[in-house]
Amino acid sequence: MKSCIVLLSGGLDSATTLAIARAEGFRANALTFRYGQRHAAELAAATRVAAALGAQRHTVIPIDPAVFSGSALTDAALAIPKGRDVQAESQEIPITYVPARNTIFLSYALAWAESLGAQDIFIGVNALDYSGYPDCRAEYIEAFERMANLATKAAVSDGRPLRIHAPLIHLTKAQIIARGMALGVDYGMTVTCYDPDAAGAACGQCDACQLRLAGFREQGLADPAPYVT
Amino acid sequence: MKSCIVLLSGGLDSATTLAIARAEGFRANALTFRYGQRHAAELAAATRVAAALGAQRHTVIPIDPAVFSGSALTDAALAIPKGRDVQAESQEIPITYVPARNTIFLSYALAWAESLGAQDIFIGVNALDYSGYPDCRAEYIEAFERMANLATKAAVSDGRPLRIHAPLIHLTKAQIIARGMALGVDYGMTVTCYDPDAAGAACGQCDACQLRLAGFREQGLADPAPYVT
Repeated sequence: MKSCIVLLSGGLDSATTLAIARAEGFRANALTFRYGQRHAAELAAATRVAAALGAQRHTVIPIDPAVFSGSALTDAALAIPKGRDVQAESQEIPITYVPARNTIFLSYALAWAESLGAQDIFIGVNALDYSGYPDCRAEYIEAFERMANLATKAAVSDGRPLRIHAPLIHLTKAQIIARGMALGVDYGMTVTCYDPDAAGAACGQCDACQLRLAGFREQGLADPAPYVT
Repeated sequence: MKSCIVLLSGGLDSATTLAIARAEGFRANALTFRYGQRHAAELAAATRVAAALGAQRHTVIPIDPAVFSGSALTDAALAIPKGRDVQAESQEIPITYVPARNTIFLSYALAWAESLGAQDIFIGVNALDYSGYPDCRAEYIEAFERMANLATKAAVSDGRPLRIHAPLIHLTKAQIIARGMALGVDYGMTVTCYDPDAAGAACGQCDACQLRLAGFREQGLADPAPYVT
């Protein structure tokens, strides 16, 4: 059984991605980051999801938020947008964008993959029902993979190239949910919200909640996760 | 005056790179990493060098070494090779290689650059008198830059592409030293050695020391840094 790294935030997309990696026969090493995000509830969700979906190992890496600024996800002084029309405004990159976040995440995953002798990294980015972040697009993922295969001893000297899997990239949120349900993911233990309350209940109003709720609606399903009422 | 990020380890190459960035008229934000390396003396050197060469700011970021393994630079159980013939063995990547290190370093620099509104990152990699690390080659640096320009809001939406400067990449160690001396770098405050003693004195035997000492010799100069006797 081959080992892989799965980037796991504790949200709906990364939980589905972990389930896909396991279904494809990988032994999964889940990797989560703590980077000053407001939603610590996400970290608890990542731990629950890693255990429930049979990750072999779950590592949480702290990232010093000193290098990030200007994002509502890491700066408590900036408000998370609520009630936006996420479809109409999808051309504009919102204030929840975190500078170079996926590049830092994938770089750690690359180091860990090489250290473990793994050649596969799974990331749950999605270019359809998403918030317009540039580091969620296929051309970005391809460029990262190309760079990675010039970066490491494993790829350059040892004939062990790296592959980045982004199995959700061309799926709608509704399709992602359908895929995860078929694989037995319990979405009740995931946290997608940018601004949950202290108990982890979702706000229902931020971009991430809106996209998630629309996905469940489209599937004719109720979201099993807790929302503030 | 434009701002840039300079990756600063406290060694000879990165000190020279900082001096070059300053000479090119950049306001320099120096970035150093603490990642469980044996040579904490390097961190003290980075702080001295940043101050001496007029960095506007110096940030030290911790990196959890959990993602690294198999490197003699981060694992005290592995011996630093001493007295190797660095020329003859230059085809083989040595045990001092740290998985994906420069990719992680550049990713943090990318995030910080975008946060500060800077478009230039300086890195002192060198593909001639070096240890054969794959992430020190021009094709790797170019691939990183290309990826970076697909990754960030600054590059993709705001018309602020990133440029990675590797001014030492095609220089010999002797040429790097000549360049730095002309710019007034005091190499006595830099630490290059992979295995210095507690006071920061270099071993004179590891690959890094050998390359450095040969560079000074070629210039007909004595290395002003302290060595164990």
